[in-house]
Amino acid sequence: MTTTRVPQGERSRVMRQRLLEATVECLVEHGWSGTSTTLVSQRAGVSRGAQLHHFPTKSDLVLAAVAHLSEVRGEELRVAAASLPSGARRTRAVLEMFAEHFTSPVFAAALELWVAARTDAELRAAVGPLEQRVGREAHRIALDALGADESHPGVRELVQATLDLVRGLGLANTISDDAARRRRILDRWARTLDAALDPDAAPEAP
Amino acid sequence: MTTTRVPQGERSRVMRQRLLEATVECLVEHGWSGTSTTLVSQRAGVSRGAQLHHFPTKSDLVLAAVAHLSEVRGEELRVAAASLPSGARRTRAVLEMFAEHFTSPVFAAALELWVAARTDAELRAAVGPLEQRVGREAHRIALDALGADESHPGVRELVQATLDLVRGLGLANTISDDAARRRRILDRWARTLDAALDPDAAPEAP
Repeated sequence: MTTTRVPQGERSRVMRQRLLEATVECLVEHGWSGTSTTLVSQRAGVSRGAQLHHFPTKSDLVLAAVAHLSEVRGEELRVAAASLPSGARRTRAVLEMFAEHFTSPVFAAALELWVAARTDAELRAAVGPLEQRVGREAHRIALDALGADESHPGVRELVQATLDLVRGLGLANTISDDAARRRRILDRWARTLDAALDPDAAPEAP
Repeated sequence: MTTTRVPQGERSRVMRQRLLEATVECLVEHGWSGTSTTLVSQRAGVSRGAQLHHFPTKSDLVLAAVAHLSEVRGEELRVAAASLPSGARRTRAVLEMFAEHFTSPVFAAALELWVAARTDAELRAAVGPLEQRVGREAHRIALDALGADESHPGVRELVQATLDLVRGLGLANTISDDAARRRRILDRWARTLDAALDPDAAPEAP
């Protein structure tokens, strides 16, 4: 090993990372149909030659961005889950955490890939398994955060319903600001969830 | 008025309708990025000249298709709501009706427009108000179908949550068949919804 190898590898890693982040930013700002490899290399400040070295085809770049995005989404949720409050307000805070996740730019980028994958078999083959992984991780985080016990009948389905609800709220928020309506719905859902996950608890615990 | 006018107007109306339906079919099969005016006129079996007569620009065609789609969606729901069963299985049937709506080809076409509108200001200006109208109509249909009384606190939010849940389930279904998971979630939600909308009712009414 020579002394120059490590910095070169590091530069290469940074450039690759910058290209993936630029791809996600392009998806957020211009959507799937407005994202091109030219736009990505410009945004990343990386030459076409360097881009082609890392990702020979658009497909290579997009598939790597799909994987990158699923890592970012998992990491975002893990970090947010680590700083949730305890006590009576926890359920509402868990819902807020997921609502923030499903209304974030990262969700918008994932939505673009998701919808494009609907009519693109190659993209679907990449997006499908990674979405399942993100979905499973989100489910596990939700179970832990809510202190929900899946061995009780119906608990698994209610936690899944919670994630599908926030996904639906995320979609509703994409073309207009839906924050006020979302807040009221999640206030109500938190009470329903607390009552359903623990039928013995008082409905309005302090 | 001459005797030829009416058939001509009728032919024109049929051609216009065929172009709108072909636009929706193209969105379902090829997505927003794969839909072109050329593809639409081919699919409709309408000449380019006739298409340009009805819709001078791609934008005219797309905006008319957005309006057409919101009418079709409202009509689909009204027809389905008219044949819902009564009795104990009604809530589950209402959920199934909305789940079918949000997993139909018509939802896929609306989703394509919705996501494209996120990064296209002109499209957003057209899609936004019509989505609000479809949303209000779906909410009214859900209230009627569930026999829910919005004057009771929290009922409005639970019915909205129900629609956001089925929207999220619709999105989850776009890239892989999610029917089995969806069925279990909706079975569970029907019980929760019955209990929440009528706290005095027995949880497992016959």
